[in-house]
Amino acid sequence: MRIREADNPMPLEVGGTLGPVDLEYETYGRLSRKKDNVILVCHALSGDAHAAGWDAEAKNNGGRSWRANHPGWWDTVIGPGKALDTDRYFVICVNYLGSCYGTTGPSSVNPATGKPYGASFPMVTVGDWVRSQAELLDRLGVEKLVTVVGGSLGGQQAIEWGLRYPDRTASIMVLAASPRLSAQGLGFNAVGRYCIMNDPAYAGGAYYDGPAPASGLAAARMLAHITYLSEEGMHAKFGRRLRNKAHPDFHFDVEFEVESYLSHQGLSFVQRFDANSYLYITRAMDYYDPAQHWGKGDLTAACKRLRSKVMVVSFSSDWLYTPKQCREFAWAVARAGAPVTYGEIPSLYGHDAFLVETEQVSHYLRSFLDNLEHDRPKKNKG
Amino acid sequence: MRIREADNPMPLEVGGTLGPVDLEYETYGRLSRKKDNVILVCHALSGDAHAAGWDAEAKNNGGRSWRANHPGWWDTVIGPGKALDTDRYFVICVNYLGSCYGTTGPSSVNPATGKPYGASFPMVTVGDWVRSQAELLDRLGVEKLVTVVGGSLGGQQAIEWGLRYPDRTASIMVLAASPRLSAQGLGFNAVGRYCIMNDPAYAGGAYYDGPAPASGLAAARMLAHITYLSEEGMHAKFGRRLRNKAHPDFHFDVEFEVESYLSHQGLSFVQRFDANSYLYITRAMDYYDPAQHWGKGDLTAACKRLRSKVMVVSFSSDWLYTPKQCREFAWAVARAGAPVTYGEIPSLYGHDAFLVETEQVSHYLRSFLDNLEHDRPKKNKG
Repeated sequence: MRIREADNPMPLEVGGTLGPVDLEYETYGRLSRKKDNVILVCHALSGDAHAAGWDAEAKNNGGRSWRANHPGWWDTVIGPGKALDTDRYFVICVNYLGSCYGTTGPSSVNPATGKPYGASFPMVTVGDWVRSQAELLDRLGVEKLVTVVGGSLGGQQAIEWGLRYPDRTASIMVLAASPRLSAQGLGFNAVGRYCIMNDPAYAGGAYYDGPAPASGLAAARMLAHITYLSEEGMHAKFGRRLRNKAHPDFHFDVEFEVESYLSHQGLSFVQRFDANSYLYITRAMDYYDPAQHWGKGDLTAACKRLRSKVMVVSFSSDWLYTPKQCREFAWAVARAGAPVTYGEIPSLYGHDAFLVETEQVSHYLRSFLDNLEHDRPKKNKG
Repeated sequence: MRIREADNPMPLEVGGTLGPVDLEYETYGRLSRKKDNVILVCHALSGDAHAAGWDAEAKNNGGRSWRANHPGWWDTVIGPGKALDTDRYFVICVNYLGSCYGTTGPSSVNPATGKPYGASFPMVTVGDWVRSQAELLDRLGVEKLVTVVGGSLGGQQAIEWGLRYPDRTASIMVLAASPRLSAQGLGFNAVGRYCIMNDPAYAGGAYYDGPAPASGLAAARMLAHITYLSEEGMHAKFGRRLRNKAHPDFHFDVEFEVESYLSHQGLSFVQRFDANSYLYITRAMDYYDPAQHWGKGDLTAACKRLRSKVMVVSFSSDWLYTPKQCREFAWAVARAGAPVTYGEIPSLYGHDAFLVETEQVSHYLRSFLDNLEHDRPKKNKG
């Protein structure tokens, strides 16, 4: 949906404007008459609007996502009878600004030049993502959300929703996310961007007429992928097993299973993701710091803005947004006087666990939603 | 010292030969008449033979190391009255095969072609390093070592010494090392090599006449450097502080302190290290697996070869060779019936702690050496 035209651009949080702005989104379930059964699902770094599979309305919205013919990235959680029950709730997922799956981003054509924005795309923030989502909801006539939910960078959008629009969010559910990236996380992002920007094919971001900076983006993805798993999980999944052989051949090509896996992750990512989007999104992740923005550096002060019920769920082996960091956020919410539920799910799957530990995640989502004190709509059956 | 000539090359563990072989080494202290006061110090990935500073004998051995005018990398531990007391012990440190600090490696000239080996350099292993060190010691007339000590890849050489030459090693001291790299560690090494080998300047390893693959090597180093620190340590050292500014400027250049630090680490490494050496050394690290080599996959069976007293020291925040992995080695030694001392030093410095936690490391080294039951030589005073 186009939420802004070129002659009415969106002012951005850290300066500049963007217009036109198109937002790719998908919906699942039916909007109630009172429009009071809406759940906003926010996706993570490499995600898209296609959160659940095979929904007729989703297809009507264009289905431009690369995954249009695949189940959505959270299909295990969203659907009839599932934790985010589409018999009851109207679920929306919006691809965010700067991404490359239908929403305006650096690979979009800048109407002023007739060429892709590339590195001239303005810096966008988690705050901008949330603001653009709010404009979309305005157009749909949705004032208040039952909940905003997401994992990782999606969880940070949930946090931002709670802080920026306290009266529009009855609750937020934050998975595998804390309010800011650690120094270690900043470091990993910096290395990934270094790989992309030093790939000669990057060409200052103006590579759309030629080959993409594939090896730089692949390196960034391989590296990031390690941070999404856990040491224990990688040990269990790969160990030191060799790839299709009993003895090593002693060379620099793939020898170990884990090398083959990472190589595949890197190469397949290059085919579906834009390198400039990777730069902009990781930078938004770096900058996100609601304590700074809303509390002058004090997270508890920031959390005093909240009017939502908050659930924070961490995963025991997540070392990108660690349980400790997630707990600190839950504590800040509690100190600010808002109701908060915190849980840590035991898992070997590291940061990716929010996508993988379906049963335990569903249990948390379902019981939190069931316990919300707001007036829930009745089920919209068939 | 040249230990092999071209017409008498060294046979290598996984095939092929290498000759001539020059080994750069430095010594500290005085060799006793019985030649029974020798400690072999083994260096880690980016180290060299210059383990301690300002020693006259070290200078006599050529002083070709890049650090010849700097204190050695373990100067805090090696010297008169220090933990590795050069008033008592004769300390030797040897730059290993494949490195770029004086010992024969891929940047050395292959006499058969008159050009640097580059990617034609044969694959060398931790076993080859130890075998070449043993040949050097043969030439010096040193049969038995008081101890072999090292951290990280240096610790793995200590393990290999104990297993390969049980009768030559009265003891081994293994710091921040386990007998094999984890799947996660294999993954990080693979990404680092991917960055180097996909840098167009790499040119299949034959870059010595042109620019080196600097951005690839810098990326590999930045990445590896994150794995040498700890999340807690990076938080304490950098947090999310901006570099020389109060507010971010919102761009892709350096904004955060941690970015500046990693960038500096990458760029300075490029000036002192050879990219091919990085490939060969990380591959040797990948392949090292003494359980496989000496015990058909059973670490305890391998450890039954040991005739040494063993000390294993881990560091609480080391996530490259974790305390858990180090403990597993200590347990295998114990199960094999060899005497073993295990300690875990609390530290925020991650894997680098073996270089940084001087006081605690020195305490462990000193007390272990003092308790050795072998006949220690008297002090050789000036």
